[in-house]
Amino acid sequence: MNLFDIPSLHDADLQAQVQHKLDRKTKPLGALGRIEQLALRIACIQGRLTPSLEAPQLLVCAADHGLSRQGVSAYPREVSWQMVLNMLAGGAAVSVLARQQGLTLTVADCGVAHVFEPQPGLAICKVAGLEEGTRDATQGPAMTASECAQALENGAALARRLPGKALLLGEMGIGNTSAATLLMQRLTGMPLVDCVGRGTGLDDASLARKTAVLQQALAANSQAREPQHILAALGGLEIATLTGAVLAAAQQRRVILVDGFITTAAVAVAAALAPAVLERCVFAHASAESGHARWLQRLGVQPLLDLGLRLGEGSGAALAWPLLVSAVNLLNEMASFDSAGVSESC
Amino acid sequence: MNLFDIPSLHDADLQAQVQHKLDRKTKPLGALGRIEQLALRIACIQGRLTPSLEAPQLLVCAADHGLSRQGVSAYPREVSWQMVLNMLAGGAAVSVLARQQGLTLTVADCGVAHVFEPQPGLAICKVAGLEEGTRDATQGPAMTASECAQALENGAALARRLPGKALLLGEMGIGNTSAATLLMQRLTGMPLVDCVGRGTGLDDASLARKTAVLQQALAANSQAREPQHILAALGGLEIATLTGAVLAAAQQRRVILVDGFITTAAVAVAAALAPAVLERCVFAHASAESGHARWLQRLGVQPLLDLGLRLGEGSGAALAWPLLVSAVNLLNEMASFDSAGVSESC
Repeated sequence: MNLFDIPSLHDADLQAQVQHKLDRKTKPLGALGRIEQLALRIACIQGRLTPSLEAPQLLVCAADHGLSRQGVSAYPREVSWQMVLNMLAGGAAVSVLARQQGLTLTVADCGVAHVFEPQPGLAICKVAGLEEGTRDATQGPAMTASECAQALENGAALARRLPGKALLLGEMGIGNTSAATLLMQRLTGMPLVDCVGRGTGLDDASLARKTAVLQQALAANSQAREPQHILAALGGLEIATLTGAVLAAAQQRRVILVDGFITTAAVAVAAALAPAVLERCVFAHASAESGHARWLQRLGVQPLLDLGLRLGEGSGAALAWPLLVSAVNLLNEMASFDSAGVSESC
Repeated sequence: MNLFDIPSLHDADLQAQVQHKLDRKTKPLGALGRIEQLALRIACIQGRLTPSLEAPQLLVCAADHGLSRQGVSAYPREVSWQMVLNMLAGGAAVSVLARQQGLTLTVADCGVAHVFEPQPGLAICKVAGLEEGTRDATQGPAMTASECAQALENGAALARRLPGKALLLGEMGIGNTSAATLLMQRLTGMPLVDCVGRGTGLDDASLARKTAVLQQALAANSQAREPQHILAALGGLEIATLTGAVLAAAQQRRVILVDGFITTAAVAVAAALAPAVLERCVFAHASAESGHARWLQRLGVQPLLDLGLRLGEGSGAALAWPLLVSAVNLLNEMASFDSAGVSESC
């Protein structure tokens, strides 16, 4: 099956049945607001009146970036591998949240500049030739077309190997807001200044430097205009791997819970390749990274949370996860006016 | 101890220590946004660097309203007692959510027009003379001063009897958006038209009728100008009981998680009586009830969620609860830069 072959889920009959089920619940019509829309969305993704979210998987893809040598981040490059170990040891924000929510955490080394010992929860899926991360996009494409295709395949294989009905997206990689910003600019055509932000916390001077570096990377890759070419030229290995995972999960009609700016980049590339991907996605939050809200608006989607988060890792997805569980539980477990013997509106 | 004697929690040393602990966690400074502010708030409420949210209690106060005979609600009066039974049977939205989140649900009959059989999870705390709800506020005070004082005491006793470190507020009572609207108008002085909304789903004609009824109730109680008098004249028994519970929980330095428009009314009265109550409160969500966002703004507080909820019951508080657990877990369990061996920003 072609990774990009993702049909629309549109099923007016099922949608009407789910809506009717929601409307018979013991509450005023629509009183659970966006939680009802979420229940409808999840039921339609799974094609079931009684959806299930068993065995949710949080996939954190990690990689390094050639661009990070240009001083585009507030943190040094070695933080990528250090944070991978911190995640696996249970001390990172995403580890704490995954534990709380009963999410199985898998960290994938998609090209981190480090050789990890094999250990539980770690998947090694480096791309040959890019074991230490992408090339510097200011000097030309970050990946070749075949390297990028390999990362997509790795992500698809990862997603297929994971069990469960829902995939939560996370990422780690010093410099990856830069890669995501480049993808946003090229995919949307919006001015770079509307796409770029402070990442992990740049000051004004560093932000100006980052913007100049990104401008240079765009100029060095001006020929890349098709989604997969854009991804290869500008993207990171973790973003490409996530894109592959998103496409495979979408084919399997899993619920895809998108985190912040970087995972939105992966979904935006996937949606450019196969638009019906977006029907399978729930957007967890609007990040404090300044381009994120604009990008979500451009994609025509509304995030669940707006809490000023800008950590990544999948932390926002993990924080939003209980809302999805609630939506499903309410749809599956609430009494109806008939079953509870409650009077209806006058 | 006087129920209104609630000191400020201000402790600059503790606040600095909690902030330092947050800032040493393996994440960019402030990258968890409002979740960090929430952790700081909870730590300061409890006066501990390592707060705990064990045994959380969701208290749903229910009562009927004399005003409900004036056609101010889309639902008939008997829905109040029917929904109490639905909550206790596990079929209401709040029952489903409490089960999911591990919240102990207590439903208090503060004056529902029904005689309930004793059963687990039900607390009977009716006020003598108002067993079937408040009097019609269009004809004079809904409660006498001593009836209102009894409801406050009932709420305080309820809260003191419940274990745990956190109290989540919920309510049920056909007509209670009307009572809350009256309290909002009189407490804030804002125009009635900015306070009134569609409740469980009134159409335009019914909204106009409700507004006229509320205008009449305000006129019939024009003498009530002090918080406790306002509560007695305009409030519901569930709101007064919740106000008492809020005051007692605040004295015990419990975290108080406020739901929507009606529980905000209870907190607003409590804060008018003892302003430092607000330091103990977290506001779960901005309701779709049109006055709620205005009232939160007037109180100077920012809610966590904005999901278009307008159900009440404590459903919004239950939906927001995992964010509080996350805030505490992140503060208590995340590694620091030192403990995890992660490099700091350049």
